[in-house]
Amino acid sequence: MPDAHNGETTGAGQSPAPVVFFLSDSTGITAETLGSTLLTQFPNHRFERRTIPFITTVVEACRVVDLIDGVAATGSRPIVFSTAVNREIRDILSQSKGHFVDLFGTHMAQLEDALHAAASGEPGKAHGLGDAIRYQSRMAAIEYAIEHDDGQSIRALERAQLILIAPSRCGKTPTTMYLALQHGILAANFPLIEEDFATRSLPEPLRPFVHKCFGLTSVPLRLSQIRQERRPDSKYASLAQCSWEIRNAEETYRFNHIPYVNSGAMSVEEISATILQQMNL
Amino acid sequence: MPDAHNGETTGAGQSPAPVVFFLSDSTGITAETLGSTLLTQFPNHRFERRTIPFITTVVEACRVVDLIDGVAATGSRPIVFSTAVNREIRDILSQSKGHFVDLFGTHMAQLEDALHAAASGEPGKAHGLGDAIRYQSRMAAIEYAIEHDDGQSIRALERAQLILIAPSRCGKTPTTMYLALQHGILAANFPLIEEDFATRSLPEPLRPFVHKCFGLTSVPLRLSQIRQERRPDSKYASLAQCSWEIRNAEETYRFNHIPYVNSGAMSVEEISATILQQMNL
Repeated sequence: MPDAHNGETTGAGQSPAPVVFFLSDSTGITAETLGSTLLTQFPNHRFERRTIPFITTVVEACRVVDLIDGVAATGSRPIVFSTAVNREIRDILSQSKGHFVDLFGTHMAQLEDALHAAASGEPGKAHGLGDAIRYQSRMAAIEYAIEHDDGQSIRALERAQLILIAPSRCGKTPTTMYLALQHGILAANFPLIEEDFATRSLPEPLRPFVHKCFGLTSVPLRLSQIRQERRPDSKYASLAQCSWEIRNAEETYRFNHIPYVNSGAMSVEEISATILQQMNL
Repeated sequence: MPDAHNGETTGAGQSPAPVVFFLSDSTGITAETLGSTLLTQFPNHRFERRTIPFITTVVEACRVVDLIDGVAATGSRPIVFSTAVNREIRDILSQSKGHFVDLFGTHMAQLEDALHAAASGEPGKAHGLGDAIRYQSRMAAIEYAIEHDDGQSIRALERAQLILIAPSRCGKTPTTMYLALQHGILAANFPLIEEDFATRSLPEPLRPFVHKCFGLTSVPLRLSQIRQERRPDSKYASLAQCSWEIRNAEETYRFNHIPYVNSGAMSVEEISATILQQMNL
């Protein structure tokens, strides 16, 4: 029997917060992703979120309906996002007392029409092992990213598809991990330090690979705040030092014709999408 | 002007592969996630995928339509998945010669009805900085995961929400990174080695935290293949050694009442969803 996880509330506003269920016969990732995207359109609402993955039998589906109906009986009608593929499971889930938003079935007829083919009806494989070669490349990329994090190794820089460079705490590591995990990109990252700025030249090990480099910069105040958490009241975290490093990093990028982006107000996902686009990866 | 990235083809079957566009006024992650999930229902089709994120102006939207129409003119009608939120942008994109699958607009009316509220119409924030506290917890979790990867540090094990344990190459590291990056879970991971198996007891630093432990196991043949890539023809990669370690790891988990899952045929996403559910995180 699947149990719900993530009983988290987000946002602020009215109360009581409506309960939102993300239901799936697979991992639930797709339901969470699109469902959450849709909910961001209601920024003044709080929601209590519950994900129930791996609903693969009629018995489990009926128990989930009981759970939803129990919530509906005690307060407002829950919202139910479902990516269940199996028609029998989907039909059962759709009969709960929640608002059933069928993220899967709604679009399937249109795709069957476009492709002149019938859907397989197998539970979602999007987050399974799927294409084994692609999956293995993602796993290998994580290993590569850890080995080549923060300039710790230059062993296999020639295999890198991307080398992220930036002053400390501009977001190199999480961006590298995201690109590895989600896209299987072989990405190294390398810090820029004071010594590099004197000549505006790249750290020596990177020079043969300048065409693979992408720079990150930030906003001085934000960088200072982030550094403050790591080393409070240090020169490293001072606004003057952060401003100086950012200015010099940007000059180094321009001098070496390295594309860069200001990560100060961007998430890792936004930085990654920007890099994929600009580096044509 | 946004350029497409990811000109990758997947699957096998008919040719020519229909072109699939993932369009967004934000990162494109949601469009890729649901679009790809829907496409897995057509396992015998190959698709050529192009993601175009950050379509935020009318001019850009018109250029994207030209691009789609250009593809449509040279072959079969492309499939166009869109999560554009802005109505003007969406209306333009919907007029291309592709099959327009509106992942956003389709469900919005239903949600507005359920919530008795109007959507904000702001471009997608789901993969932006969003809730700052939640975002920072994800970034901190990545740092934590890297520091506590593979037993390298036991400095802050008491802060862990989860300690993954397993023999080498059962998937500890990528699962830990996934849980950190996507869910902000503070997860350490620790290898189980031969010495641990003699007594069936946990490695000493983990003993105070047995309630946070979750075990991974695998299928001997698969584990042997994975180890073979790292150290070909070693004892470490031999089928006998892999069988022995897996059997002993499972006995150790049972002896210490530690929940575990066989990761041999599961993706990192599936393992993670299982752990979140079983550990009630």
